[in-house]
Amino acid sequence: MRAWKMNRGGGIASLACVQRSDPALRPGEVRVAVRAVSLNHRDLLMANDGDGSLLVPASDAAGVIVETGAGVTAWRIGDRVFAAFFPDWIDGEPSDANSARGFGGGLDGLLAERVVLPASALVRVPATLEFAAAATLPCAGVTAWNALFEAGRARPGDRVLVLGSGGVSTFALQLARAAGLGVIATSSDDAKLARLQGLGAGATINYRNEPAWDRRVLELTDGRGVDLVLETGGDATLSRSIRAARKGGRIAVIGGTSGGYGGVLEPWALVGGAKTLVGELVGSRTMAESLARFVDENQVAPVIDRRFAFEDARAAFEHLAGARHLGKVVIELPGA
Amino acid sequence: MRAWKMNRGGGIASLACVQRSDPALRPGEVRVAVRAVSLNHRDLLMANDGDGSLLVPASDAAGVIVETGAGVTAWRIGDRVFAAFFPDWIDGEPSDANSARGFGGGLDGLLAERVVLPASALVRVPATLEFAAAATLPCAGVTAWNALFEAGRARPGDRVLVLGSGGVSTFALQLARAAGLGVIATSSDDAKLARLQGLGAGATINYRNEPAWDRRVLELTDGRGVDLVLETGGDATLSRSIRAARKGGRIAVIGGTSGGYGGVLEPWALVGGAKTLVGELVGSRTMAESLARFVDENQVAPVIDRRFAFEDARAAFEHLAGARHLGKVVIELPGA
Amino acid sequence: MRAWKMNRGGGIASLACVQRSDPALRPGEVRVAVRAVSLNHRDLLMANDGDGSLLVPASDAAGVIVETGAGVTAWRIGDRVFAAFFPDWIDGEPSDANSARGFGGGLDGLLAERVVLPASALVRVPATLEFAAAATLPCAGVTAWNALFEAGRARPGDRVLVLGSGGVSTFALQLARAAGLGVIATSSDDAKLARLQGLGAGATINYRNEPAWDRRVLELTDGRGVDLVLETGGDATLSRSIRAARKGGRIAVIGGTSGGYGGVLEPWALVGGAKTLVGELVGSRTMAESLARFVDENQVAPVIDRRFAFEDARAAFEHLAGARHLGKVVIELPGA
Amino acid sequence: MRAWKMNRGGGIASLACVQRSDPALRPGEVRVAVRAVSLNHRDLLMANDGDGSLLVPASDAAGVIVETGAGVTAWRIGDRVFAAFFPDWIDGEPSDANSARGFGGGLDGLLAERVVLPASALVRVPATLEFAAAATLPCAGVTAWNALFEAGRARPGDRVLVLGSGGVSTFALQLARAAGLGVIATSSDDAKLARLQGLGAGATINYRNEPAWDRRVLELTDGRGVDLVLETGGDATLSRSIRAARKGGRIAVIGGTSGGYGGVLEPWALVGGAKTLVGELVGSRTMAESLARFVDENQVAPVIDRRFAFEDARAAFEHLAGARHLGKVVIELPGA
Repeated sequence: MRAWKMNRGGGIASLACVQRSDPALRPGEVRVAVRAVSLNHRDLLMANDGDGSLLVPASDAAGVIVETGAGVTAWRIGDRVFAAFFPDWIDGEPSDANSARGFGGGLDGLLAERVVLPASALVRVPATLEFAAAATLPCAGVTAWNALFEAGRARPGDRVLVLGSGGVSTFALQLARAAGLGVIATSSDDAKLARLQGLGAGATINYRNEPAWDRRVLELTDGRGVDLVLETGGDATLSRSIRAARKGGRIAVIGGTSGGYGGVLEPWALVGGAKTLVGELVGSRTMAESLARFVDENQVAPVIDRRFAFEDARAAFEHLAGARHLGKVVIELPGA
Repeated sequence: MRAWKMNRGGGIASLACVQRSDPALRPGEVRVAVRAVSLNHRDLLMANDGDGSLLVPASDAAGVIVETGAGVTAWRIGDRVFAAFFPDWIDGEPSDANSARGFGGGLDGLLAERVVLPASALVRVPATLEFAAAATLPCAGVTAWNALFEAGRARPGDRVLVLGSGGVSTFALQLARAAGLGVIATSSDDAKLARLQGLGAGATINYRNEPAWDRRVLELTDGRGVDLVLETGGDATLSRSIRAARKGGRIAVIGGTSGGYGGVLEPWALVGGAKTLVGELVGSRTMAESLARFVDENQVAPVIDRRFAFEDARAAFEHLAGARHLGKVVIELPGA
Repeated sequence: MRAWKMNRGGGIASLACVQRSDPALRPGEVRVAVRAVSLNHRDLLMANDGDGSLLVPASDAAGVIVETGAGVTAWRIGDRVFAAFFPDWIDGEPSDANSARGFGGGLDGLLAERVVLPASALVRVPATLEFAAAATLPCAGVTAWNALFEAGRARPGDRVLVLGSGGVSTFALQLARAAGLGVIATSSDDAKLARLQGLGAGATINYRNEPAWDRRVLELTDGRGVDLVLETGGDATLSRSIRAARKGGRIAVIGGTSGGYGGVLEPWALVGGAKTLVGELVGSRTMAESLARFVDENQVAPVIDRRFAFEDARAAFEHLAGARHLGKVVIELPGA
Repeated sequence: MRAWKMNRGGGIASLACVQRSDPALRPGEVRVAVRAVSLNHRDLLMANDGDGSLLVPASDAAGVIVETGAGVTAWRIGDRVFAAFFPDWIDGEPSDANSARGFGGGLDGLLAERVVLPASALVRVPATLEFAAAATLPCAGVTAWNALFEAGRARPGDRVLVLGSGGVSTFALQLARAAGLGVIATSSDDAKLARLQGLGAGATINYRNEPAWDRRVLELTDGRGVDLVLETGGDATLSRSIRAARKGGRIAVIGGTSGGYGGVLEPWALVGGAKTLVGELVGSRTMAESLARFVDENQVAPVIDRRFAFEDARAAFEHLAGARHLGKVVIELPGA
C-alpha cells in the first residue's frame, strides 16, 4: 500500500509517495482503509520546520475498518470511523501524559492508503456525514469546538468574535451559529465577508477598512464587548481581541493558524476587565464524539474549499500554502 | 386605571376587573404601561387554591416605561421592558432571600393597565420581539431556559427529552433546537406531535401508543439514553424519565405544569446510573437577560396559542384551564 | 500463590483460601504483590446475594509492583500502587463503557497474594501513606471524595451533613474537615458521636434522642440548612436529608452502605427548594489520584477499625458484618 | 464626627482629619460606627496618583450598625458587619454595572468614625472574629478568595504557588492551607520564608538565591508544575509564573499589589500548555459571605502586621508604604 512521507524541514518539495507493507496488528489496534484526509496549517509547519526526520504527514483522516486486533470489542469490520487528534487523550483535562503525541507530529500521520490505529482513539462517523466532512473534524473541528464550548465556555445567549476565514475560524462560525450564539466575523476581503455572512455571521468587519476593529465590536454590542473571542490572529490582534471582550469575558488563544505571538500583552486589561486568556490544544476524544453528534444533529456541512486525489497530495499542500482558501483542503481516496 | 383581582381559592369566577389609582413611585421604582400579559398554569393554581385573600394575578408581562422614580439611571421613559419572575433574584444561585416572593404569588401580579416595578427587576425587550412574545419569557421561558442550560447543564452535542406540549415543554423544545440540541418529544396526540416535529423535534413518541416510552427513548439513542430529561409530567412519568436518561444524565424536575408528585422514587436508579435529579424554580434576572438575547439572536418565536383582550381575561383563564392549547395564552392591551 | 474465593450468594461461609498459579502478563499489564486489602459493605452484598458463581472478593488493595508487561512505561518494579475501583474509568464523566466493571463485582477482586492489573488503572501511593491506609482509598475514599467534591460540588465556605459512622461517612468527615468545610454528623451512639467530634465534626446529633434531626440541622445553620448532605442512610433518612439541605442545596445519594431505598420521595421539596439529588458511583482514576495527593498533603489518616491477617479473612468479613465498627476493616499481608 | 480625607495625587502628606456631620439615611441605607479599617496597597495608589479631588480613603472596614433606614429588614441596630468592596456586585459574574464603583476609589471610602452604607452591601461578622480581622476581608481577603476558588478554580488535591508576602499572598496562603491545598511560597527574605512556613507553606523558595524559581517549582512538583499560580508580582514574574503552572493549569493575575505589567507575554506557552491566564477584580458580596463563613469555621486568623489608632492614620499609611510588613496594617477605633 502507498503512503506519503516528508522530511521535517524539507518543505512541500520533500513529499514523496512510497510503498509500505501493512504491519501486523497488536492487541487493541485496528486497521483502517483511509477514504479522506484533511490538511491543516500545522501540516505546513511540520513540513517547513524540523530536523529532517521522515514523517507521514496529516492528523485528520476518516475511513473504514478493515481488520480488528485481539481484544477489540467495540468496533467491527466495516465501521466508518475517524481518529482523535491525540490518541491518548480520551476525556477530562489535558495533561503531559495525554496530549504529548499527535498524529502527523510526534506520531506518524494518516496520509496513507491504510493506517493502524488504537481502537480507543476512534470515533464513529455519523451516518449522514460523508468521509470528506468527517476528515475535517479531528483538528480544525475539535479545535473550534474546544475554543467555543470547553476552554471558551460559551453559553447560550453569548456573542462570539471570530477572526479571519481560516479553517478553525470558519468552523467556529458554523458551530457557534448552530448552537445559537451570535457571531461577529472579521476579514480583509469583502468577498470572504459575504461568504461568512452566508454562513451565519450576524455582523462582519473589514479590518482593512476599520483597523480599530475592536472599537467596532464594542459598538456592535452596545459598548459591552463580546463574551468570547477566538484569537487566531497572533501578534497583530491579541491586544485588540482583549479589548473587544466584555468585562469578565474570555479570549481563547489558538495556535497554529497564522504565525506566532511575541507582542506586548497588556495584563492590566485582564485585571481591570476581569478577563481570561485561555490557551487550548485541540481536544479529547470525548470532545470529538460530542462534535460528531452535534454536526450530525444540526447538519453542519464543513466548508470544503477544494478536493484533491491521493496522487495529488503535493498540489493539495501547495494550495493550502497559497492561503487563498476559505475552509478546508481535503484529499480523497477511492470509496470516499 | 384598571386591574384584575381574584380571590385566592375563589377560582376563575372570582376574577373581577377593578379601578385602581396609580400609587406614587418610591426611589428605585418605575411605572410600566402593560402591553401584554402571558398566563401560566401557576395562575390557575393560585386561583384554585388559597386563603381567600385578594391578589392581582399573573407573573408575566411586558410593556413600556411611563415614569421613573428617584435614583433610577438605567432606564428611560419609552423603554420596552419585561419583569423578571422573582424581583429579588438578580444573579447567582437561588436562596431563601432572593426567590421567596414572585409576582402573582407572594406579590401582587401584573394583570393591570399600569404596574409599579423595581428598576432592578427589569429586562430590556429586544427590538425584534413583539410585546406578546416578550410576555411569555418571565415564567415559561426562563423555566425552560434554567431547566436546559443552568440546572440541567445541557451542552452542545446533548440530546434532550421533553414531555408533552405544555408551555414550558414547547418553549424548551424551541430553545433546545435553536441551541443545536437533539430533541425527542412525547404527546398522546398525533396532531400535536406533528406540530412538535414542525418546531424541530427530531423524534416523537405517542405515549398512548407506546406506554413504555422510556424503552423507545433508549432505542432512539442506541441504548444510551438522553443526556437530559425535562420532567414536567409528575407522578406518572418520573420513574420512566429516570430510566430514559443516560448513565450520568440529568432529570430537571419542574413544578407547576401538570399536577404533583407523590409516587415511589427509585433512588437506586440514581445511584446505579449516577443520575441527577435537579429541582428548579424559574430563574434569575440574569437568566432572563440571556434568554432575551438568545431569542432575539435566533428569532425564536414563542408559540402563542390564542390572544385575548384585557376585558376578556376571564375567558383567557378558562381557555387555559381547558388544557387543549399548545403554547401560550396571552392577553393583549392596546399598543401591543 | 494464595487467593480467597467465595460463592456469590453463598455468604461468608463460602469464603475459601485456594492456591492459584500466576498467569502470564499480557501487554499493558503489571503484577502487584498485595500488601493490604480493605473491605467494604459492598463485599458483604456480593457474598450474600448472587448466582453462586465463584469470585475473588474485594475491590480495594495496595501493594508493590513485581513485574511489568510489554509496553508498560509509566511504572517500574518496586513502585507502590493501588488500583482504581473501575479499571476502565480514567477521567471525565461516568458512562456505560467506563463504569460497568469493578473489581470484586463484575471482575475478580484483589484478595490474593498477587494480582494482575492493567497499568492504566494504577495510582501511586504517596510516600507518607502506609499500605493499609492506601488500601482504604479506592472504594470508600473515592466514594466520599466524589460525593463531596465532584458530584456534590462542595466548595469552601460550605457546610456538610454526614449520616452515621460507616466507612464512607467517616472518610467524608475527615476529607471535608481537611478541606475546611463545616461538618455536622449524626449517630445513634454518644460514644461514636464523641469520636466523630474528635475527627472534626463541628456539631453532632444523636438521632435516637432527636428523631426530627432535620429540624436540628436547620437550627444549627440559622434556619438555612446545609449546602450538601451525604445520604448514606436509605429509606429512613432520604426525606429528612432533603429537608436538611438549604435552598439550592445538594443531596449526594450513595449506595451500598446500609440497605436500599424504596420510600416515598417528595419531589416537590426538590422543586420548591431548587434542590438537587445526585446519584454517584465511586469515581474515576483521576479522582483517586487527586484524593491520594490530598490525603498526603493533609496527612489524613483513614480510620482503621481493626486489622486482620490474610489467613483470617473470614474473621475480617464477620467483623464487618457485625456492624459495630467505626472506620475500615483491613486485611494485611506480610510486608505491609 | 471625624473622617480622614486625602487629595488624589497629593500623597500621604495630603491626608487630613476633618469634622463632618452625619447625613440623613435614605431608604435602604444603614449607618455603621466603624471599629476597624484595614489598608491596602490600592490606597497608596489612590494617594499617589490622581486629579487632586478629595476622597475619603480605604475600602475595608468593619463596625456596628447604629441606625437603619426605611425599608431595611435584614439588619438590626447592634449587628456587627463589614462592607463588600463593590457595593453593587451582589452575586454572579463581574459586569460593567456591578463592579465599576468601589469604596475609597470611585466612591468615598470608610476611614471615618461613622459611614453610611447600602444595606445590600453588608456582610455579617461571624461571632468569633474581632473587628480588626473582619476589616481585612473586603479587599485582600476576597481578592485572595476569588483568585483561589472562583477565578482560579482551585480544587481539593491542587497545589498552589503564591509569590511574596504581601497582604493578598499571605491571605491566600492561609486560605489555601485551610482548604487543604498544597502551597509553595516565594520571598527574597529567609526570615519571611520562615514565617510563611509557619503559616503552612509546604515548600518555600528564596528567589534571590534561586532566580530561576520556576524550575524549582517544577522540581518540587515532580516536573508537573502547580495547578494554580497567584500572580501578584508584575513584570518580573509573569513569564516564570506561566512556566511554573502545569499543563492545563491556571495563573490568576491580580492587580494592585506591586506595580504594573508591560513585559513580553509568551502566549505560545499558553497554547502549548493549554494554560489559562485569568484576570480578577476583588469579588462579589456572595464571595465575601463565603469567605466570612470559611474564616469562622476554620479559625483563620488574618495576619495583622501592626495596629494604629484612628488619630495615627497617616503613620499607618507610611508604615504600609515602607513595604517591610508581612500581613495587614489595621487602624482601630474605640470599641474594636
